[in-house]
Amino acid sequence: MALSEFELIRRFFDRPQAATGRDDVVLGIGDDAAVVTVPEDCDLVLCMDTLVAGVHFPEATSPEAIGHKALAVNLSDLAAMGAEPAWFTLSVTLPAADADWLAAFARGMFRLADHYRVQLIGGDVTRGPLSVTVQAHGLVPRGEALRRAGAAAGDRIYVTGTLGDAGMALRQGVQAAPALRQRLDFPSPRVEAGLALRGLASAVIDISDGLLADLGHLLEAGDPGAELQVDALPASAGFAAAAATNGAENVHYDIALTAGDDYELCFTVPPDRCAEAESRLAGLPGGCTVVGVIEAHPGIRCRRRDGSSWVPTGAGYQHFRNGNG
Amino acid sequence: MALSEFELIRRFFDRPQAATGRDDVVLGIGDDAAVVTVPEDCDLVLCMDTLVAGVHFPEATSPEAIGHKALAVNLSDLAAMGAEPAWFTLSVTLPAADADWLAAFARGMFRLADHYRVQLIGGDVTRGPLSVTVQAHGLVPRGEALRRAGAAAGDRIYVTGTLGDAGMALRQGVQAAPALRQRLDFPSPRVEAGLALRGLASAVIDISDGLLADLGHLLEAGDPGAELQVDALPASAGFAAAAATNGAENVHYDIALTAGDDYELCFTVPPDRCAEAESRLAGLPGGCTVVGVIEAHPGIRCRRRDGSSWVPTGAGYQHFRNGNG
Repeated sequence: MALSEFELIRRFFDRPQAATGRDDVVLGIGDDAAVVTVPEDCDLVLCMDTLVAGVHFPEATSPEAIGHKALAVNLSDLAAMGAEPAWFTLSVTLPAADADWLAAFARGMFRLADHYRVQLIGGDVTRGPLSVTVQAHGLVPRGEALRRAGAAAGDRIYVTGTLGDAGMALRQGVQAAPALRQRLDFPSPRVEAGLALRGLASAVIDISDGLLADLGHLLEAGDPGAELQVDALPASAGFAAAAATNGAENVHYDIALTAGDDYELCFTVPPDRCAEAESRLAGLPGGCTVVGVIEAHPGIRCRRRDGSSWVPTGAGYQHFRNGNG
Repeated sequence: MALSEFELIRRFFDRPQAATGRDDVVLGIGDDAAVVTVPEDCDLVLCMDTLVAGVHFPEATSPEAIGHKALAVNLSDLAAMGAEPAWFTLSVTLPAADADWLAAFARGMFRLADHYRVQLIGGDVTRGPLSVTVQAHGLVPRGEALRRAGAAAGDRIYVTGTLGDAGMALRQGVQAAPALRQRLDFPSPRVEAGLALRGLASAVIDISDGLLADLGHLLEAGDPGAELQVDALPASAGFAAAAATNGAENVHYDIALTAGDDYELCFTVPPDRCAEAESRLAGLPGGCTVVGVIEAHPGIRCRRRDGSSWVPTGAGYQHFRNGNG
């Protein structure tokens, strides 16, 4: 590399502590390892996700979007646990030390990091095919981490935000409306919703692989079945417009049910807590929408408003396509 | 991939908790994130290192060695902080789901993990060019983490183990003696030495880039100069034999001073604590050897036993070659 790893780290990633104002970082970037303090009454929640060029994002994705997304997908995992983001480490592998690329990457990443006061405390920059790994650390009051397990028959199924925007953008490529493209490139982790669901949701997962796939993961860990109301799936105005030009309803539902990359939360709430959950999330980014109910009978059944069953037809549904993240 | 990511993780990486016997893992592999408990009186120490095929290890390296080394280089960073290894996360990117490769990789990694009771608690498996990222987490009594900063003029400079074996193996390639090859492929992180140096060493760094380069990092953070006795550099029998066939002394010293990948510790101790440090480390893996002294005068001076100065001649010395790890 023209610039050494150390120079790259100093120039683009080693920022004053003041950027986040955290006082729990004992030692940040620059030693063999970082040192942090975890509050006595908290559990530590941690997750790691790797994004590979050409696999997890199109090669042409802007470095700003890659920087945002690499952190966002990990904050989304923390959100699904009800954890408050605290620190992250970063490993960037790139073919050459491209200062412009790194500056844009860092800009995208730190904008999101600063918003949630999550501090970069270490990692490395190495030479090789483009990929980015982020490990995020969050805090949750001891014993209060949300989980995939716990959904019981009768619990209502909710999703935050809207579904299918990212999938529609991927499908439409360069012709996608800017609002859809924005959802694909700059997903919003539902951190606030995750925090609000502590002590309330019976199960939570983030939707990285599509609602059907991720609801499937949630069912593996709790009661085994669910009914979804496809007419209730929340859609953005941009998604509805794109779907209208497509014509066929099944394409619309397929994308909303099976496309990944939305990074909304899917969660379940016992019937007697639903009003509280809806009230808590109403004022938060994304809000929430009830889309179905947990059932004791195994399998996921999709229904129309008139009670008729609806079967996903798209090729997008691959249960284990992409990730445990 | 022929096998899905989930199947790969279940088959090769999701093991019974009993393997490490840790009771501080609240939630391991299988949810959106892991949950662990950090003891109240401890700081959390964390580091992340990525190994890229063809950059950090030769393409022909055995998967068992890659599995070992990816964890070992991170445990070495924890050792340099005086931290006790606790948990790690793993991101493996590989071109295809090769069950034999993954089985050997996991075998190499878990042998080392089990030895130090460090538990794999999460991560992901993705498709792409071969690389491995590990994030390791360790614990240290609050405020007692060792650092690079702190060396003062008059402090003795020590290294653990022997230097140059890995560099000699890289240089000799397939003709390297098995003992040298073993040091390159299966480095021993000096965890026990790191723990023993708590409260005793004034500064510590692990030698991943070569003694001169890493001592240079240590000096950036403390007093600015050092004198090294090149005749005192500890060499293994295998290294001495290989150096003897090379003939030239300067090659021998160059490799010991500038080759990376040994993952020994370099540390400094105030004169009045040296006897204690030597005594503590005498019975531990690798032991330790005094190789020089910290000086107030900037720069690193290498000397022979007769007091003559010695100047590294090899091309191996690249100050910022590879890593902050």
